[in-house]
Amino acid sequence: MVVGRTGRRSGSPDTRGAILDAARQAFAERGFDRASMRAIATTAGVDPSLIHHYFGTKEQLFQAALEFPMNPQELLPQALSGDPDQVGERLLAAGLAVWDSPAGVAGAALMRSAMSSEWSAALLREFVTTQVLRRVLVSLGIDRSPEADLRAALVASQIAGLIMTRYLLKLEPLASAPREVIITAVAPTIQRYLTGPIA
Amino acid sequence: MVVGRTGRRSGSPDTRGAILDAARQAFAERGFDRASMRAIATTAGVDPSLIHHYFGTKEQLFQAALEFPMNPQELLPQALSGDPDQVGERLLAAGLAVWDSPAGVAGAALMRSAMSSEWSAALLREFVTTQVLRRVLVSLGIDRSPEADLRAALVASQIAGLIMTRYLLKLEPLASAPREVIITAVAPTIQRYLTGPIA
Repeated sequence: MVVGRTGRRSGSPDTRGAILDAARQAFAERGFDRASMRAIATTAGVDPSLIHHYFGTKEQLFQAALEFPMNPQELLPQALSGDPDQVGERLLAAGLAVWDSPAGVAGAALMRSAMSSEWSAALLREFVTTQVLRRVLVSLGIDRSPEADLRAALVASQIAGLIMTRYLLKLEPLASAPREVIITAVAPTIQRYLTGPIA
Repeated sequence: MVVGRTGRRSGSPDTRGAILDAARQAFAERGFDRASMRAIATTAGVDPSLIHHYFGTKEQLFQAALEFPMNPQELLPQALSGDPDQVGERLLAAGLAVWDSPAGVAGAALMRSAMSSEWSAALLREFVTTQVLRRVLVSLGIDRSPEADLRAALVASQIAGLIMTRYLLKLEPLASAPREVIITAVAPTIQRYLTGPIA
């Protein structure tokens, strides 16, 4: 850790850490939309331009702050383009591919943390809602429908349950089933929650 | 805590605790089917008849050891009797009723614990498999089918995900939705996993 002669933080790891701490606090307490980069910079004691330099956009800062194992901005566009009647299958395939990769270990740690701390839960909830589910709803053109949020939460419930049983509880045969088997079985669920009858 | 003059445990709370500890160890390490009441009694340093006296059957001992918030033997028969085409709805309604009750708090603690410890995860996995899912499969007469275990695990994935999002992450609108709304939306999923096409 490098500390300048004035006692103020300087040097990259420490400054990055201060920014990430401030970001976590802001996103958990104020939510993604109301958290401001300027306020995060003030809390961290740095210039806002430094945040952009280190982390890029507000979305990217949120992903870094949460240590979320994937970048929704990279992953979602491909899953969301194409036949809307198969978006459930594409979303599920993309999600399982991330979780089956080495990044899944970080994801598991994140889930555990969210289960044991209200604060982590708020952060993960906010991330999933604003960075993943909202994009899916907007892309399908249903974000203004009265049942949009319920549809999104139902999707989250099935995906979260798959993660929990396959990767954390390691319930067989889900834990060792090939991805394709799970996709075939579960994709119709995701698809119905998104575009089918739910009421 | 009451300790007898010989130094051996005596007195109800201490003996019960020793039995429960021995039971957790046996169920996690050997599984429900292979764990023996006699071996549990030996480990706990008590007579097997005392286990029966305190806890009843092996199933009841397992429920007590896990502090599972419901007794599957009481809850399941009703949900499993009646029209098999609506068993998904009845199972979901029964499960949500437990989780919406004060017992749900104990259930949430159990889930958290299973997420953070391999040992607790093994215990919960074994309980759900042998005490809940197996009964459901047997009742539907599909426990010998090659895809029976996958069907059961899929059901567990959706129920676990609902518990996680509604009660632990408190994702809205799932967290405050009336039970009936969730049942209408999710029961077809459970039903398909149990008796519909999954491959």
